[in-house]
Amino acid sequence: MGHLVDRRRVVRVRAAGSPQVAVSARPDQLAVEAPLTIKHGERTVATTMRTPGHDLELALGWLVAEGVARSPADVTELTSCDTDTVQVRLAPGVPEPQSRLGATSSACGVCGSDSIAEVLARRPVPGLITLPMVDDEEPARSSSSSTVEALIDAGVLVGLPDRLREAQRAFDRTGGLHAAGLFTPDGELLCVREDVGRHNAVDKVVGWAATHGLLPATNTVLQVSGRASFELTQKATMAGIPLLSAVSAPSTLAVDLAEEAGVTLAGFVRGDSMNLYTHASRVRVEVPVGA
Amino acid sequence: MGHLVDRRRVVRVRAAGSPQVAVSARPDQLAVEAPLTIKHGERTVATTMRTPGHDLELALGWLVAEGVARSPADVTELTSCDTDTVQVRLAPGVPEPQSRLGATSSACGVCGSDSIAEVLARRPVPGLITLPMVDDEEPARSSSSSTVEALIDAGVLVGLPDRLREAQRAFDRTGGLHAAGLFTPDGELLCVREDVGRHNAVDKVVGWAATHGLLPATNTVLQVSGRASFELTQKATMAGIPLLSAVSAPSTLAVDLAEEAGVTLAGFVRGDSMNLYTHASRVRVEVPVGA
Repeated sequence: MGHLVDRRRVVRVRAAGSPQVAVSARPDQLAVEAPLTIKHGERTVATTMRTPGHDLELALGWLVAEGVARSPADVTELTSCDTDTVQVRLAPGVPEPQSRLGATSSACGVCGSDSIAEVLARRPVPGLITLPMVDDEEPARSSSSSTVEALIDAGVLVGLPDRLREAQRAFDRTGGLHAAGLFTPDGELLCVREDVGRHNAVDKVVGWAATHGLLPATNTVLQVSGRASFELTQKATMAGIPLLSAVSAPSTLAVDLAEEAGVTLAGFVRGDSMNLYTHASRVRVEVPVGA
Repeated sequence: MGHLVDRRRVVRVRAAGSPQVAVSARPDQLAVEAPLTIKHGERTVATTMRTPGHDLELALGWLVAEGVARSPADVTELTSCDTDTVQVRLAPGVPEPQSRLGATSSACGVCGSDSIAEVLARRPVPGLITLPMVDDEEPARSSSSSTVEALIDAGVLVGLPDRLREAQRAFDRTGGLHAAGLFTPDGELLCVREDVGRHNAVDKVVGWAATHGLLPATNTVLQVSGRASFELTQKATMAGIPLLSAVSAPSTLAVDLAEEAGVTLAGFVRGDSMNLYTHASRVRVEVPVGA
């Protein structure tokens, strides 16, 4: 049985108009996200970012969905090799599953921290992407006290989800589309894209920025309509976007990658409040005089 | 520019306690889902289920996120070959992207109807999976009038999302986990699984059913906490589950696959109402005497 949830430190900000008031810094519970590799012999047939637990069921269910396991006799062995790998053995004559490699394809069989290291290694050279780097002297996961330069007012940031919804042409009609929007620090919308897949919506926004010569997009904020996963954080990181803001919850691995990549991750950006999971000083919070 | 939304016929059911009243059958707008293939030379480097439109941006943004395109000069050409394929040309010396094949890996470069045909072809032989087949005489997409046998009362079905939430151990603490639950037609919960990825949650449930000798799960209902995509419908189809119920919206391709696979697809199952997109007769709706 794996861990469904884990804790990360969060700065909770309430921005009731202006001036805004920072409320508290406390540990928060997040859904755990970590890569699972499914191997057949020496071959990796699938890698997926999942919440640990019931990994054998996950592998078996995936084999059923792919049409590989068509009867109970088709799978002769299913073993958890380590915390992040399931080894599959198929009966003779059962065709091998086709590879399904996820966004973390070359992170097969490795742990979450290796996935993070891989993204950081693939990130363009510092001369191209100019995100402020995390100070090496800083202890890990104490990002809330890191001193990146302020980029956006909390009062502007909490308004972005509404601005994104206003800009969505199809959402209200179907309820089935995710949206991603790229904003300036003043809250000006540069580009909005919609898709059934939230990763696709972000890819489209990043592609738009690339075609307009805006990468690395170091002076922008990426607002997404759903949750913040490892994959979305990877996309923001690679595009040089310093702030990823999500309407819903982030995963543990999203927070850990954002921390190490120097990206500010905001979650539950709703109403007049938000949670800042990493590099909180990029969000300007004005405490009223006398508070 | 592709189509973000398309219409499908839907039966809207309101089940205010018992007896229940069917309200209306009407066209509804759904988010379009269709496969996009990204090719480098002859090689397919990615296939993703996306909403058509801005496909070149999607491909370029994906190349940035994967660390392939690190400067504007890295991508020398980006062309839409047809509605579902983008051809990429990289500058000499730029390393090829690693393959990222989705759940529809062998449907590369084909259209949505081919994706459906592929799932149906991979589906276990009729002797193993005993879903009622769609009558060949029926015109396509007139499923609401198909005459599959009733499986579950509308009043029971609308209660499943609440039962799923009650069974979720982690959801309330993190807000970041999707859930999938397998229920009997009487509303008894057989298995619930949670994951940051909704496809993983369903894989775990199907894997549980497989380990308990319950496949094909022809006498069950699969309730999911989010939206209904092609991939989730594929998983229900392959497991022989006759009814997939989602709290949120389905995509066009989910509806089209459910239609052809003989699966009942329910969406927006909330409060006391639901939308039935395919094979509505599997949900028993009692019209009050005198109505």
